[in-house]
Amino acid sequence: MGGSSLYRFSRRMNQVPPSFLGELFRVSSEPGVISFAGGLPDASRFDPEGIRDAALSVFSETGREAMQYSTTDGYLPLREWIATRYRDRLGLKATAGEIQIVNGSQQCLDLVAKILVNPEDHILIERPGYLGAIEAFSFYEPVFDPVPPSSDSPGGPDLSLLNQCIRDHSPAFFYGIPNSQNPSGMTWAPEHRREVAEILEGTSILMYEDDAFGELFFDGKPRKPVKKWLPEQTIMTGSFSKTISPGLRCGWIWAPQPIIEEFNRAKQAADLHSNLLTQMILTQYLTHTDCDPMIQKSARIYGERYHLMSDIIDDRFPEGTSHTNPEGGMFLMVRLPPGVSSMKIFEEGVKQGVAVMPGLPFYVDGGGTDTIRLNFSASDEEQIITGMNRLSQVIRSLT
Amino acid sequence: MGGSSLYRFSRRMNQVPPSFLGELFRVSSEPGVISFAGGLPDASRFDPEGIRDAALSVFSETGREAMQYSTTDGYLPLREWIATRYRDRLGLKATAGEIQIVNGSQQCLDLVAKILVNPEDHILIERPGYLGAIEAFSFYEPVFDPVPPSSDSPGGPDLSLLNQCIRDHSPAFFYGIPNSQNPSGMTWAPEHRREVAEILEGTSILMYEDDAFGELFFDGKPRKPVKKWLPEQTIMTGSFSKTISPGLRCGWIWAPQPIIEEFNRAKQAADLHSNLLTQMILTQYLTHTDCDPMIQKSARIYGERYHLMSDIIDDRFPEGTSHTNPEGGMFLMVRLPPGVSSMKIFEEGVKQGVAVMPGLPFYVDGGGTDTIRLNFSASDEEQIITGMNRLSQVIRSLT
Repeated sequence: MGGSSLYRFSRRMNQVPPSFLGELFRVSSEPGVISFAGGLPDASRFDPEGIRDAALSVFSETGREAMQYSTTDGYLPLREWIATRYRDRLGLKATAGEIQIVNGSQQCLDLVAKILVNPEDHILIERPGYLGAIEAFSFYEPVFDPVPPSSDSPGGPDLSLLNQCIRDHSPAFFYGIPNSQNPSGMTWAPEHRREVAEILEGTSILMYEDDAFGELFFDGKPRKPVKKWLPEQTIMTGSFSKTISPGLRCGWIWAPQPIIEEFNRAKQAADLHSNLLTQMILTQYLTHTDCDPMIQKSARIYGERYHLMSDIIDDRFPEGTSHTNPEGGMFLMVRLPPGVSSMKIFEEGVKQGVAVMPGLPFYVDGGGTDTIRLNFSASDEEQIITGMNRLSQVIRSLT
Repeated sequence: MGGSSLYRFSRRMNQVPPSFLGELFRVSSEPGVISFAGGLPDASRFDPEGIRDAALSVFSETGREAMQYSTTDGYLPLREWIATRYRDRLGLKATAGEIQIVNGSQQCLDLVAKILVNPEDHILIERPGYLGAIEAFSFYEPVFDPVPPSSDSPGGPDLSLLNQCIRDHSPAFFYGIPNSQNPSGMTWAPEHRREVAEILEGTSILMYEDDAFGELFFDGKPRKPVKKWLPEQTIMTGSFSKTISPGLRCGWIWAPQPIIEEFNRAKQAADLHSNLLTQMILTQYLTHTDCDPMIQKSARIYGERYHLMSDIIDDRFPEGTSHTNPEGGMFLMVRLPPGVSSMKIFEEGVKQGVAVMPGLPFYVDGGGTDTIRLNFSASDEEQIITGMNRLSQVIRSLT
């Protein structure tokens, strides 16, 4: 008895890449290590007092209701707030009925694949692509078709390859992060968004537009989503994790009604509904606080940190290093000088007190071994200077 | 454009029975309708003041930490509290490392099937069985083998049929609710638990022991779980939904380490981790409140409501009606007189101001059309008397 040989796991468990993240987070959190490896917002930007006050209001007004079972679609006033924000901020006609609440937008990755993907179905995904999406989708045993950035105009995916994959494989959807992508930090240009919409329009292929970072442009200005040009074929997801709090696990999906109905069935089977107390607290907070200045200040601070990090790379990293130039979000990606391995940088970095995220797991078809992802949101100026100097020395020592 | 014909959903969506629950909850919540159809705990038994005070402590001590990303396995002090409770209450050697936090034990139904079930694999399930489990498992396209109660000793599943299904189909697991089952309300006898364990021991078939109601025995006394006799092959799940609050969506899985590791990968892909603020609030609450008297009082009140309901059935319902005799939980099941249809009772009941849950969806192989499930936890004495009198008249009018 005992030992894993006793247990028969499902075939899909063999499809899921072994997660490197556990080990990564373990070493990254060792004392003395400055970590650019994770993806945390800066906790000093949270507003626990504001959330506490909102919680007190909820308890005094609807405490008992907040503790009872609720509906699968989510707390209506919160869905209305989200719909109104899409209308006010992006000029898009969203309705509460097309929005459902989930446990952070990560849950959408699981449930959207559940309702749309059969084993062997193709999924288009950016190359490099978001690791959490690769992991979530992998449970549904798809074939990934990676789409690299366009080489002539780097403001979005390679359109001819996109066209070709659509013709050849009729994928279930194209998963992309047009705003400050994770891991590359890159943002699709407006004309590129329209062109992607035109390519998809009228096909049976959906756009899955993950907008985790749309509120975090350094200049505070919103960008029009692909959904503007492709409303009936776009699933858009959002989250409070990067703006208010990730620990509250609250995000949403915005999709056409027939998709929302199937999504609702999957959500009900998955966990009945999301935490109602949290939904009420967030609603109370959002409707009584002007969050925009707070969010824009976070974005400005992240922008300053990005520029600091970027300047150090440009000034001190060895010849042959290049990096992406994000307009927002929390990440940039570095391409190392020829011959330098990102796994070696990771291993040697930890010894020297700096942790980075190797690029490999973001590439569904392998590759990216000469890239690393750096997070600039979770470290302050001093940590960035110290950590980047350590990283510069590590890279030099291995070049 | 528009219309569901535009969208291609995955094959698994066709395997999931159309949910009757939305319609049910809609009509059940119409004004003037007394509902025995749902499955809610009594909100007047909640302790919003206690939870509020716990929340204030969390905000004053670890508010910022509570709002940040956390680990997939869950908040360690909460997992330790749960492990200690298994040791103190049931004398079982649980460790925090074998326990993971989820969004209510419903999430375990999804994730356990995800890591264990291939399409066409068999799943043993009680007949009638829990609807939420049938729905969650159906997404993984299994074949259900329903196991009715033993006819000679009704204190558990039919053991010879269980043996036969195991030999014929080598199912992934046997899903059962030994304590106050939903929907029947029945509890397995202790010797029956040991016998089920003996049948499974040494096979590759797991016991999935859903213990949503183990704290709600009317007599306040715990029952030993199947896991006591089958520790290495039993997945046990529990929840705070029936004792503290369902709106907080907090439950757990307790399983052998190799299963926990795969479960953890599935949980990470599904939603990264459960709400940390809620986990911290619950930990604070549980470690500073003696919840046992409160929970036991709820169970006593539910027992009184059950007895009232049961007496009315015995005294006033037409000849040929029978019902189960729960020792705990929130439900009993009524078998109607010959020829009476539970769907008719549902439809006519709503017109007369009383809602019941027809038995049909609990039977994976059809049947149960002469049964209804009644919830006795969510209605007070007066509502039970009025509602049951209405129901009695409806049944008489259709007999």
